[in-house]
Amino acid sequence: MRDVAILGAGLNKKWGELWSMSLRDIFVEAALSALDDAGVDHFDSMYVGCMTSGMFVAQEHLGSLMADYLGMNPVPATRVESACSSGGVAFRQGFMEVASGINDLVLVGGVEKMTDVGGDEATHALSAAADMEYEAYEGITFPGLYALIARAHMHQFGTTREQLAHVAVKNHKHGAMNPVAQYPFEITLEDVLGSVLVADPLHILDCSPITDGAAAVVLCPVEMARKISKKPVVKVLGSAQASSTIALHSRKDLTWLESTAKAASDAYKMAGKGPRDLQVVELHDCFTIAEIIVLEALGLAERGKGGQAAESGMTALGGKIPVNTSGGLKSKGHPVGATGVAQVVEITKQLRGEAGARQVKGARVGLTQNMGGTGGSSVVHIFEAV
Amino acid sequence: MRDVAILGAGLNKKWGELWSMSLRDIFVEAALSALDDAGVDHFDSMYVGCMTSGMFVAQEHLGSLMADYLGMNPVPATRVESACSSGGVAFRQGFMEVASGINDLVLVGGVEKMTDVGGDEATHALSAAADMEYEAYEGITFPGLYALIARAHMHQFGTTREQLAHVAVKNHKHGAMNPVAQYPFEITLEDVLGSVLVADPLHILDCSPITDGAAAVVLCPVEMARKISKKPVVKVLGSAQASSTIALHSRKDLTWLESTAKAASDAYKMAGKGPRDLQVVELHDCFTIAEIIVLEALGLAERGKGGQAAESGMTALGGKIPVNTSGGLKSKGHPVGATGVAQVVEITKQLRGEAGARQVKGARVGLTQNMGGTGGSSVVHIFEAV
Repeated sequence: MRDVAILGAGLNKKWGELWSMSLRDIFVEAALSALDDAGVDHFDSMYVGCMTSGMFVAQEHLGSLMADYLGMNPVPATRVESACSSGGVAFRQGFMEVASGINDLVLVGGVEKMTDVGGDEATHALSAAADMEYEAYEGITFPGLYALIARAHMHQFGTTREQLAHVAVKNHKHGAMNPVAQYPFEITLEDVLGSVLVADPLHILDCSPITDGAAAVVLCPVEMARKISKKPVVKVLGSAQASSTIALHSRKDLTWLESTAKAASDAYKMAGKGPRDLQVVELHDCFTIAEIIVLEALGLAERGKGGQAAESGMTALGGKIPVNTSGGLKSKGHPVGATGVAQVVEITKQLRGEAGARQVKGARVGLTQNMGGTGGSSVVHIFEAV
Repeated sequence: MRDVAILGAGLNKKWGELWSMSLRDIFVEAALSALDDAGVDHFDSMYVGCMTSGMFVAQEHLGSLMADYLGMNPVPATRVESACSSGGVAFRQGFMEVASGINDLVLVGGVEKMTDVGGDEATHALSAAADMEYEAYEGITFPGLYALIARAHMHQFGTTREQLAHVAVKNHKHGAMNPVAQYPFEITLEDVLGSVLVADPLHILDCSPITDGAAAVVLCPVEMARKISKKPVVKVLGSAQASSTIALHSRKDLTWLESTAKAASDAYKMAGKGPRDLQVVELHDCFTIAEIIVLEALGLAERGKGGQAAESGMTALGGKIPVNTSGGLKSKGHPVGATGVAQVVEITKQLRGEAGARQVKGARVGLTQNMGGTGGSSVVHIFEAV
């Protein structure tokens, strides 16, 4: 197993409702940005993370399509899907390919084009991340599933409605400093509490938006990165993935993310690091309650106390462990297949000291956590500037 | 890189229109068959090849779903998509994971549930393997695309309508000996020529059917297979994947499969073998013309002379190089995401001497070729009984 570095990283120019761009345009823009950042004009193999281009824009075969539109045929090109963790899982496949010595330069991109359909269709497409037969067809949608988790967490641990809102306020404060973000502006606690109710206790400002966007990174062996790049070398220290029941109702405890806890435990072990060694984290805040339970599964908050993290300022820039400095899914946006790769882009910028106004000073070790559905799949990566 | 073996292989009981079974049932049946054949009750990681469960049954997140229904949480579980080569590409990911030493026991399955929608919807879903914006939305479907290839081949090389039909006759003759096959019966040249015209020159009996089905294999290091299995060890000698333009109209030559030629060349090199070393081949005969051009790209027939292969008996059981002893996509059926894995299942049975009435005597080296769309992606594997 070789040590693997991130040679380049980039997003498409702006996330949001990109009605003048198609799936392929968005992906290519992000891929070219990553290649430019890496300083290379070729690669040996590529991966595309995408959840459901089939249901959103009736297009599959994304490996072939994206290699073609990048002018990179005949490179092997593989699309990976794991619902909202498609990007993180694609990144792990690329990592394994470089670590194993099979190829040296591997591009990993993630993309989702979500706004070519109406709201009902988007909700239907996203429901395909849940157990369609036993959850979605009975009438529940993702805000409903996460509302059940939030209610259970409030009941078991006394988490408050305001604590949920603090997560959104904090992530918008970070996102206001990210020019790529879909909603780069601050909101107040009152804004969240007064916003439209979606699924009690979750209001619209507890939910991540529908977003078009893409992200990409270029991976190579650490030794190669030292030779060809003048930028700080960001090394992948740990990589782990785990699954859990696809249906929320099959879990022993609605508030405990088994798949994230398992992936985190494996990734910490591989990296030789623990929660206390981290200086910056990007995690999967698809809903405000998600950030709270992920913090607990990662060991960054005690069980039941995740709600206090944003409220106390612990997870804000300047706090003990800044979380979602990019703005997170909440403010930056959540093009589902791109999210996991975009998290790696943010951590790369942070560990290189290139995060501008939202830079975590002296950040050396960072973590990404990306999950599918209500945690049916999770993937965790740990990075270090070496 | 470690040597990788196939420890177990299996299909679900019967391919066809499985209206009483859902996507998950079919997959689990095949996976349990492979685990039973392997003699193991666990694995470290899994892959699911599937083209478009989103468009066929509105379900994504297949890694989580299938690990869950196999009772195997929290194993990492990843879905791979490459249109009709999803199964072959999933197999390659599993191969890389074992070869690299990341995990020892990896399950790779492929599945497609295609008959829960009507014919028009199935045609639409399959069109997602083509360039939807520049091919399908202009009105062409897959029989039309392959008809263009067939016409070009007839024009350039004098390939005859009868030569196309001979491919279907040969594959049905093989499939009649395969109890899992969707259409396990023989057909005549007259049957093909007299069948309904779909897209001139292709008739309905030139086309592979719409099928529900699944296939699975268990991979492990060769050394482990020698220890825990009493069956002949089937080793993966070569693995390669390549891409080409997704749209047929972007190719220099409609009749030449660049991606298959590149993947075959790379796989032969890795295996230290050539076309003359093969005793049995499973290839992607989604239409009769496909078998002809694939034979040429694999170097099993001279350029332009692929049409003579089935006509002369060269590719029939008992011929120089038996092709598609399983019945191929034409007779066995073509559940698109399962096909690439099912090809590996057939070659495994052949190299173990377990193929019954359709056994190729003394087969030691075999090859599988699986492709997406009109060849936008191709994957080739070479196997040897060691």
